[in-house]
Amino acid sequence: MTELFRFGVSLPKDLLNKFDKLISEKNYTNRSEAFRDLIRQELVKKEWEEGEDVAGTITIIYDHHQRELATKLMDIQHDHGKNIISTQHIHLDHHNCMEIIAVRGSAKEAQKLADMLKAVRGVKHSTLGMSSTGKHIG
Amino acid sequence: MTELFRFGVSLPKDLLNKFDKLISEKNYTNRSEAFRDLIRQELVKKEWEEGEDVAGTITIIYDHHQRELATKLMDIQHDHGKNIISTQHIHLDHHNCMEIIAVRGSAKEAQKLADMLKAVRGVKHSTLGMSSTGKHIG
Amino acid sequence: MTELFRFGVSLPKDLLNKFDKLISEKNYTNRSEAFRDLIRQELVKKEWEEGEDVAGTITIIYDHHQRELATKLMDIQHDHGKNIISTQHIHLDHHNCMEIIAVRGSAKEAQKLADMLKAVRGVKHSTLGMSSTGKHIG
Amino acid sequence: MTELFRFGVSLPKDLLNKFDKLISEKNYTNRSEAFRDLIRQELVKKEWEEGEDVAGTITIIYDHHQRELATKLMDIQHDHGKNIISTQHIHLDHHNCMEIIAVRGSAKEAQKLADMLKAVRGVKHSTLGMSSTGKHIG
Repeated sequence: MTELFRFGVSLPKDLLNKFDKLISEKNYTNRSEAFRDLIRQELVKKEWEEGEDVAGTITIIYDHHQRELATKLMDIQHDHGKNIISTQHIHLDHHNCMEIIAVRGSAKEAQKLADMLKAVRGVKHSTLGMSSTGKHIG
Repeated sequence: MTELFRFGVSLPKDLLNKFDKLISEKNYTNRSEAFRDLIRQELVKKEWEEGEDVAGTITIIYDHHQRELATKLMDIQHDHGKNIISTQHIHLDHHNCMEIIAVRGSAKEAQKLADMLKAVRGVKHSTLGMSSTGKHIG
Repeated sequence: MTELFRFGVSLPKDLLNKFDKLISEKNYTNRSEAFRDLIRQELVKKEWEEGEDVAGTITIIYDHHQRELATKLMDIQHDHGKNIISTQHIHLDHHNCMEIIAVRGSAKEAQKLADMLKAVRGVKHSTLGMSSTGKHIG
Repeated sequence: MTELFRFGVSLPKDLLNKFDKLISEKNYTNRSEAFRDLIRQELVKKEWEEGEDVAGTITIIYDHHQRELATKLMDIQHDHGKNIISTQHIHLDHHNCMEIIAVRGSAKEAQKLADMLKAVRGVKHSTLGMSSTGKHIG
């Protein structure tokens, strides 16, 4: 069981009201939980800035009618086996596929793999969701 | 087959050299492909800014030892069935799970669902990868 | 004098240690001040997302040797007098000027003005710093 | 005079139409100029990622009624004289000041200075506009 530590925080009344409004809009049920998430958000940002061990998601969109594209994407993924955990494939419509690749490794490796996939002819978009291994964010 | 249209572009020589260096670092094999991706990147940014129909990826990290957390996350996902395509679950370590949810709908719905999942007690991090349905980015 | 309101926050011990480390790296002297800034950061993000009345900074880089560029930039700024507070001009080197324009108005107006300046031939870069009027962030 | 270099680019017709629509909304008068700006945007992003020599703008919002705040901000700026080019001060309303500091140096120094100013008690918001010295973006 995680040990909780309690301490006091002082806010101007007006700022506190705005915080309460903000977190209720975002569905939080108490201030501590919202505060914990603000901190974790900063910690994850830092993990990525400092190139630490991260986890994340590369999402690519492509037209599967493009010749040999699927093979090329598969080849790249196999060459980066140590950074790829698993892949989820979605048929968006008759033409467009979304492939979501769960990745793990250094921030630089994740970024490089996202760049490499994006550069393949026929890949229309690639985005990198910056998440965390969860280990260092309490 | 997509019809290609060819036109001329003028660049200062120095800028062109830098562009060529940049795209070779990013693994592009020709300028047109790199240029197409720069355009699509702007179009996807616009889809999200203007609240259009988008696709994306919500990645959440949580500790599955947290009581009733999995049930709560499942409930929320079922309540948003129309925006969720599929979910991929990864065991990062003994404590931490990564759940990757492929979403579709308006930009606002995707953002709201990401916020809602993040606010659940025990969810350590939630990030929204902004991608595209592929339909309107050529 | 602003009235301060004090309340308790609970954090896992490990997360608290990381928070303390993070804020000391960022020069904060106490947790409350760091917490206030995290909240304000979210409020300013919201002001911009919801298109409210904002303040900000448009920074453009251009080569003043480009013919008639300065005149064109001046004209645009005069046409947007109601959104522009003042302008600071810096000579970066023999060629490059940095012009920093303090703006105020709706988020949309600020973005539109930044886009318009960026599109002028000879303007190499334009960036919009998203700040606040300070009124609604306690 | 900068030497221009002309080359051909191929785009799917549909993507070209969308590009033309996008750049006309953003006030560009020709495709080459829009293309040059897309490239420069990527180059400036890279300058910041790789910690190169950059220029930028730190914008802070504070309440000047806060005791000794102005003195403290002045002290910090003097301690970082080598990174600060000039400062513009704007009275937003009876309480709120906006101070815009033109900075130059490594990306890390600029970020550090922005963090330091943000941590000062009474500074409500600090944002860093990432621009360029203009030297390496053609």
